[in-house]
Amino acid sequence: MVAEKMVRKAIMNIKPYVPGKPIEEVKRELGLDKVIKLASNENPLGTSPTAVEKMQERLERAHIYPDGNAYSLRAKLSSKLEVAQDQLIFGNGSDELLAYLGQTFIKSDDEVIMAETTFSEYEFTTNLMGGNLIKVPLKDYKHDLEEMVAAITEQTKMIFVCNPNNPTGTIVTSKEVEEFLEQVPDDVVVVFDEAYYEYVTNDDYPETIDYLSDYDNLIILRTFSKAYGLSGLRIGYGISNPELIDYLKRVRQPFNVNEIAQVGAYSSLDDKKHLEKTLEYNNQGKEYLYQQFEELGLDYIPTESNFIIVDVEESNDQIFDKLLKEGVIIRSLSSFGYQTKIRVTVGLPEENKAFIEALKKVL
Amino acid sequence: MVAEKMVRKAIMNIKPYVPGKPIEEVKRELGLDKVIKLASNENPLGTSPTAVEKMQERLERAHIYPDGNAYSLRAKLSSKLEVAQDQLIFGNGSDELLAYLGQTFIKSDDEVIMAETTFSEYEFTTNLMGGNLIKVPLKDYKHDLEEMVAAITEQTKMIFVCNPNNPTGTIVTSKEVEEFLEQVPDDVVVVFDEAYYEYVTNDDYPETIDYLSDYDNLIILRTFSKAYGLSGLRIGYGISNPELIDYLKRVRQPFNVNEIAQVGAYSSLDDKKHLEKTLEYNNQGKEYLYQQFEELGLDYIPTESNFIIVDVEESNDQIFDKLLKEGVIIRSLSSFGYQTKIRVTVGLPEENKAFIEALKKVL
Repeated sequence: MVAEKMVRKAIMNIKPYVPGKPIEEVKRELGLDKVIKLASNENPLGTSPTAVEKMQERLERAHIYPDGNAYSLRAKLSSKLEVAQDQLIFGNGSDELLAYLGQTFIKSDDEVIMAETTFSEYEFTTNLMGGNLIKVPLKDYKHDLEEMVAAITEQTKMIFVCNPNNPTGTIVTSKEVEEFLEQVPDDVVVVFDEAYYEYVTNDDYPETIDYLSDYDNLIILRTFSKAYGLSGLRIGYGISNPELIDYLKRVRQPFNVNEIAQVGAYSSLDDKKHLEKTLEYNNQGKEYLYQQFEELGLDYIPTESNFIIVDVEESNDQIFDKLLKEGVIIRSLSSFGYQTKIRVTVGLPEENKAFIEALKKVL
Repeated sequence: MVAEKMVRKAIMNIKPYVPGKPIEEVKRELGLDKVIKLASNENPLGTSPTAVEKMQERLERAHIYPDGNAYSLRAKLSSKLEVAQDQLIFGNGSDELLAYLGQTFIKSDDEVIMAETTFSEYEFTTNLMGGNLIKVPLKDYKHDLEEMVAAITEQTKMIFVCNPNNPTGTIVTSKEVEEFLEQVPDDVVVVFDEAYYEYVTNDDYPETIDYLSDYDNLIILRTFSKAYGLSGLRIGYGISNPELIDYLKRVRQPFNVNEIAQVGAYSSLDDKKHLEKTLEYNNQGKEYLYQQFEELGLDYIPTESNFIIVDVEESNDQIFDKLLKEGVIIRSLSSFGYQTKIRVTVGLPEENKAFIEALKKVL
């Protein structure tokens, strides 16, 4: 075909993302009245109600282009995080920032180091730019930072550290990160993807913003999709030094973050009570699920996020299908190389209970 | 600096976009109560009121990830346009689709042909991927398709045709486009950017979708930002054959189009009356402005879009400043190489009148 000759070679190695069906479709096909989705680590309490209200008001001016500089949100977030305004970049979800990282730094045959079992978009952005992936196996379900350092070569351009890690929910500690950073050459970009930052309860979790003053090669990614409940709107942000942020801004489209997302993020930051409630429900939900898994004699991985891996001791793809027929959607982790592990998002108390009931039924 | 060595060379040639100040800031600084913005070709009637309502309702589930496949919108649009569902791709504004075009097709030293005076994002996506730009001057403010064909070499990868052209508002006709397409080699991607498609009143405007069956190298871009009044939400779409769409989808992030934009676009397609009213106001506004410009003895370029270039016969940057102080924002076209031309969006009758009053005052 002519088209094959027209496209960049790197594209040939990328498979288009195949999206799942919308819940409404699933319901129709399976004849279900109610479906509980514990598959995408969304906030089961929803978005802050005051943020929803502010977004609804702002829709009256949906015909006006977004503020390309995210003026108000930038000012508020910079003050909250105690970083300068030019240390921040906003993206159409942190997914887009991952794409920007590739476009800014990765050229053909650059090496990119990532964990073997982690968020798939690091692989996407590397492939897109023709980089070579070096995957380092997890150790006890955690990033093996020592082996990641050992994997560094002259060609290494970037290292991704997902902390907490998706899908395992584990963290690397301040001590581990500090030892790691000391060993990474200063021309290798270290990306901490902290999408689940707000959920962490472990005191040994690093406050990576504090390392920005000592290391010029750090980029931290966070999002409003998870604890702030804004997945549907798409907004995430990156924190680094002004120089790297300036480079990242060069690959940015002028109006990449829609205005409603900006308003939602701004207002969510004000609603501290909703965030507190979110974390409280998550902690209670974790404890409930741990206890239930223990009673069922199922191994799980203690989590620092809003999802838990549990080993169902039989085919995860089959369990997925069986749970779906019971009206519960979870993630089978077969695509991550696990054959009997599933990932379940911590839901509302009644959702967690319904999941456990369904699980008991199908096991 | 270390950072300079870390980034891709192509990045060094790109300047970060410098966003304008939000209107509220402009008002505060200049002590203005009211500002009329006729600078960004937004729909002065706003978004369809029923679309606003549907979006407001949908915000109650803002915490749920968007439908990554735009299932409902895709079905509705494919039926409206009479193309297959796999002939469509959606983007975070058509800006994002322009970036996808570069990432899918343009490699280092590929040549990309564009008009000298047209939308700047074609230049951005080409530079981002390290392509070489070949700029062909407009002829009578129109794309010079003959010279664009003459500029094709063995290295040509892509040709951008902005139709109607931004910022001139001119079109190339079906006859011109048909002659052009016959001469373009089949391994050169031809992109018709039709962001202002809905506004065209000239019968000679090509219905490019009809050419898709004869040419496998065509991609058409349209948007919901302009006539549909959804600039703030960010949603555009591309139409091509399934093979090229499949390649474009490979560079797409799974959740690139937020859910509220999808709902807004879907509902806007239903509100035919709002679109009719939009076009009616635009046509009346055009006539009013033409007449006023003629009375003032100012040359203008008849437009097929919702903006008009008028020659103010003195420094456009100075006129911009003077109009701003009168509370009217227009676009000076100095960055496009014009020294005395400005671009004004057709507004509501009262806005057009206020603009003319202000213009009379400052000239």
